[in-house]
Amino acid sequence: MKAERHPANPLITPKDVPPSRPDFEVICVFNAAATKYKDETILLLRVAERAKGDEKTVRVPVLKFVTDGPSQIDVIEIDRQNPAFDFHDPRAIYAPDQILLTSISHLQVARSRDGVNFTLDPKPAIFPDRHSEMFGIEDPRITYIDGRYHITYKSVSPTGICTSLAVTDDFLHFEKKGIIFCPENLDVCIFPEKINDRYVALHRPVTHFLGGLNMWMAYSNDMLGWGDHSFLMGIQPDTWESGRIGGGAVPIRTEHGWLEIYHGATPDDRYCLGAVLFDLDDPRKIVARAMEPILEPTADYERQGFVSNVVFTCGAVEDGDTLRIYYGAADTFMARADVSISELTASMLA
Amino acid sequence: MKAERHPANPLITPKDVPPSRPDFEVICVFNAAATKYKDETILLLRVAERAKGDEKTVRVPVLKFVTDGPSQIDVIEIDRQNPAFDFHDPRAIYAPDQILLTSISHLQVARSRDGVNFTLDPKPAIFPDRHSEMFGIEDPRITYIDGRYHITYKSVSPTGICTSLAVTDDFLHFEKKGIIFCPENLDVCIFPEKINDRYVALHRPVTHFLGGLNMWMAYSNDMLGWGDHSFLMGIQPDTWESGRIGGGAVPIRTEHGWLEIYHGATPDDRYCLGAVLFDLDDPRKIVARAMEPILEPTADYERQGFVSNVVFTCGAVEDGDTLRIYYGAADTFMARADVSISELTASMLA
Repeated sequence: MKAERHPANPLITPKDVPPSRPDFEVICVFNAAATKYKDETILLLRVAERAKGDEKTVRVPVLKFVTDGPSQIDVIEIDRQNPAFDFHDPRAIYAPDQILLTSISHLQVARSRDGVNFTLDPKPAIFPDRHSEMFGIEDPRITYIDGRYHITYKSVSPTGICTSLAVTDDFLHFEKKGIIFCPENLDVCIFPEKINDRYVALHRPVTHFLGGLNMWMAYSNDMLGWGDHSFLMGIQPDTWESGRIGGGAVPIRTEHGWLEIYHGATPDDRYCLGAVLFDLDDPRKIVARAMEPILEPTADYERQGFVSNVVFTCGAVEDGDTLRIYYGAADTFMARADVSISELTASMLA
Repeated sequence: MKAERHPANPLITPKDVPPSRPDFEVICVFNAAATKYKDETILLLRVAERAKGDEKTVRVPVLKFVTDGPSQIDVIEIDRQNPAFDFHDPRAIYAPDQILLTSISHLQVARSRDGVNFTLDPKPAIFPDRHSEMFGIEDPRITYIDGRYHITYKSVSPTGICTSLAVTDDFLHFEKKGIIFCPENLDVCIFPEKINDRYVALHRPVTHFLGGLNMWMAYSNDMLGWGDHSFLMGIQPDTWESGRIGGGAVPIRTEHGWLEIYHGATPDDRYCLGAVLFDLDDPRKIVARAMEPILEPTADYERQGFVSNVVFTCGAVEDGDTLRIYYGAADTFMARADVSISELTASMLA
């Protein structure tokens, strides 16, 4: 079963987002967390900015450390002719002893009454402000649990790619809670209910010597410390999800199990969305897994962008039987595709 | 300052350890956790066994899954002439789609009244028995805290290298508590006291895209879930610890800070032991770090073995002002080196 793209796609593009300072340009607005707050749909957008360069110079934004006051971004200038640097990857610059990212991301709120037309808040919601966020913060997920909105996000720095936690009650004030998954780990989705009195999360360790880019599960008593880790589901050789898989939207409860919309990619980084059902009482058990993706990158705005051939979700919102899947397209735009929850789960169980 | 090798070194060799079954041979006994229990010094040895092969066949031990009854080891036979397999690494066999380890490890107790002459318990103490331990269990550390002995150990399987927890009260009965650090993570040492009401651990994530093989710190409220991760200390370019560092012995309290004997290695895997002091109240602060190793692999039994040029500790025992550092030598033997705690800390603070 396939999800249906919204005719207004893409919903948000980089042109819609003013840069945080005049010498920067927004190059990507994508991979937003999604939730409902009062009568609004909230997207917590990942906004990636680049320092404007010129023909001779690449300018790289990096968090500057200040002992007090608001965090600031420093700009490192690198001569394009400098043979010590490798500029071939649009996302990163490789030097002999370091890697720099070409852009830096923060998180910004967008609000909508109809789930289609969004208005951006004027200022960033969550900004990098510590060593572990030196290269930016990325790919949030929002879980409403215990009466508060819990936000997981990638914190990226020269010491590794971690997942951190922040909480908010109003999407105006945010409190950071530190790193909850140590490097290298991403795609963390906290379930919206405790199961057998424990918090549960999907996560995606990046292994080195043994193991692949598979989905794992962890448990917690306090949402700050995570353990009882277990391998949950793996990549599938010779398929659309043969290179890597990872959690996407926060799982939603259905009568047939926890429905998870996740991403799978090939080794050459073609990203699709898939669907899996986990057992309601013991989510380590897989009830059903769709063999075919529910969304593949075939639209123009999914096929061409900062990273081409990518659909990637960090959040979906229930609207009756409709699941509105918000997703990043080509690492550049925000888009939406809808699917009937009952029809999707029925097709998976058939 | 240098630690002094014990004249009886090596204290335990593979010949001292009977194999767990007649068609196996013990090839390494090393990297033991160490603690005091009643009037004994306990070593929890890592015992690595290999299935005996012959000129034509390599035999690889792998955990077999049984739904009930004790765990068993299966033996996979591989023709040495099979071109699909790469046998060049003594530790691992590489096939196109998998990695196999040539040996499988379990943990076995050795006891001593004098800290030098050890008697082995007749049976393994902790044996691999689940999917996450399919390739064996390795490199334990013992922390006595909350009135119980808590054992961290590497659990190795095709899905990754994790760190798991087990507890014992008597070194006869052991209860496994599951994976506490997800892949890829090792060298986990839990501090012997809560600090500011939280458990604290050293750990060593293995990063992939960003970051190096550095030491991190984590906190926990229950020793099962770990969070509030932070980068603690890094490798040092162009030194004996330029390739990787990781926790070694469980830290011991001194008046000047938590004394940690850790390992550092070069990129070509020459392993030494180093010393660092962490602040007593906030162990994320480094009080002093010895620039030179306290032990380098120069003795014959450290220079030649299953993996040459290795000294690696998983445990040390206080004996008045003497710290008895038990260490694995050349990934083959158990040895001991002593250092004066007061002289070592004074030399670090000088």
